[in-house]
Amino acid sequence: MNDRAWGVFAPVLTPFRRDLSPDPERLVRLCRWILGQGANLVPFGTTSEANSLGADERVSLLERLVAAGLDPARMLPGTGCCSITETVALTAHAVKIGCAGVLMLPPFYYKDVNDEGLYRHYAKVIEGVGDPRLRLYLYHIPPIAQVGISVGLIQRLLRDYPQTVVGLKDSSGDWSNTQAVLDATRGADFRVLPGSEAFLLRGLRAGAAGCITAGANVNPGPIQAVLERWQTPEADALQAGIDKVRGVISNYPLMAALKEILAEGRKDPEWRTLRPPLVELTREQAKALLEALDAVGFRLADDREH
Amino acid sequence: MNDRAWGVFAPVLTPFRRDLSPDPERLVRLCRWILGQGANLVPFGTTSEANSLGADERVSLLERLVAAGLDPARMLPGTGCCSITETVALTAHAVKIGCAGVLMLPPFYYKDVNDEGLYRHYAKVIEGVGDPRLRLYLYHIPPIAQVGISVGLIQRLLRDYPQTVVGLKDSSGDWSNTQAVLDATRGADFRVLPGSEAFLLRGLRAGAAGCITAGANVNPGPIQAVLERWQTPEADALQAGIDKVRGVISNYPLMAALKEILAEGRKDPEWRTLRPPLVELTREQAKALLEALDAVGFRLADDREH
Repeated sequence: MNDRAWGVFAPVLTPFRRDLSPDPERLVRLCRWILGQGANLVPFGTTSEANSLGADERVSLLERLVAAGLDPARMLPGTGCCSITETVALTAHAVKIGCAGVLMLPPFYYKDVNDEGLYRHYAKVIEGVGDPRLRLYLYHIPPIAQVGISVGLIQRLLRDYPQTVVGLKDSSGDWSNTQAVLDATRGADFRVLPGSEAFLLRGLRAGAAGCITAGANVNPGPIQAVLERWQTPEADALQAGIDKVRGVISNYPLMAALKEILAEGRKDPEWRTLRPPLVELTREQAKALLEALDAVGFRLADDREH
Repeated sequence: MNDRAWGVFAPVLTPFRRDLSPDPERLVRLCRWILGQGANLVPFGTTSEANSLGADERVSLLERLVAAGLDPARMLPGTGCCSITETVALTAHAVKIGCAGVLMLPPFYYKDVNDEGLYRHYAKVIEGVGDPRLRLYLYHIPPIAQVGISVGLIQRLLRDYPQTVVGLKDSSGDWSNTQAVLDATRGADFRVLPGSEAFLLRGLRAGAAGCITAGANVNPGPIQAVLERWQTPEADALQAGIDKVRGVISNYPLMAALKEILAEGRKDPEWRTLRPPLVELTREQAKALLEALDAVGFRLADDREH
């Protein structure tokens, strides 16, 4: 497989009301807008504050998305928890509801675990779900999870579960790791998805399948355009355009910055709400962020237009 | 308060069957043996593989312990999850069932969070539980959780919730941090509990209230003896005795080593089972561990004797 230009995915932001309860209606609206721009959805990624949601809240929100008519075949929900029990429950639910696959963190509490332990975890989850429809994307994000997924672990899982383990999101931020995974999985049915649009064009040229990126919450159209036109002469210019926007956002705490952009674009201050332990931008940060985005020609989108 | 010699607590190991389901009967037996040695219980600590259990499994196991007649007034269950939602649910359950208090990790997925975000998390949990009976012990374990609890955060919580925030387990392994917390909370109703018996006598002399230590799963009697006789002439010799045992165990992966000791002492090989991502000791490690313990005069206990 290794099919290029497979997709851009947004780990979609989770809106909270002032009382910190999730707001399914604003979530549906954001998802519909992202899908309308051509990108796809990862509900419950890191950017979604998924790990600040309980398992029941994730199940309930996913059901609301599907009930609202959004296509689960365009979703890869995050389902990786610290326990096998909860990971199996969330994964089985996602498969049952028709999702294209799941994005699965390794268990991230215990540190200094070895590949044998991580292999057993994933194997137990796959066997616990016990559904041939499961398509599992491994989630490598060592800067946050601390526990990472080595090339050796990928190869062992791919060997033993070739129909199930079909890809990896690489949020290492380290191109040499992405390249090593591409090299190790070449020829296999395995999709490599960098965790930032900064690596989108470079990834596509090297054999990656697209990207899963926080930036697609606010800039999905231009990111999707790179995916669709990566083999055209304007590809580098398109990539340079999305790099500028990402470059600005990267100077701020990511989730808070993205929520600030949504709040401002939609004239909807509630979008600024994050669940602790994350905090919103200060007024000074917000002002500087919006000015810097304006300076690079970024237009705040409003999903109420759609 | 700062009452010394308040207690030794074992973050009690969770037994799993070969199919990785928790085994409440063996857990009750271990708990009863530890209580019989004079120590107390922290069900669902780090050593308990709590973060490899689902929230439902924790609720169910705690109910089994209490139903078996074990005194919840001698328990401080771990209830800290990444989400406010699940932390509130587990904490409210522990309070309702009569536990002396809870030991609460900070939310540990997102890194580089600030004290404002952690303060808001704990405040929301306390308000969400909304029960004046709640006694909350903060859990500082930066080597594993990565997210730590600063002295400034302790002081702010203690100022705003003086009836509720009543202590801290310090698993930093850094005596200077324990000393700083003792200094900052002197005069307040606040119990400081080092996370290893290695700091028990030193802690008691400096104003700590006891300790919460993995070692109390296998060596509770001698650790409890240090607590009870810390002001007697033999205190240093007693501390030296428990240091020798801890020194041996510390050379191996902690949870795997403790389960090996239980399995061997109880002639119950199922005790060796850990949930992934943790793995059991190799045969060579197990042999070396048991020989080294024998060399320091450690006697394997058998809870079937009780």
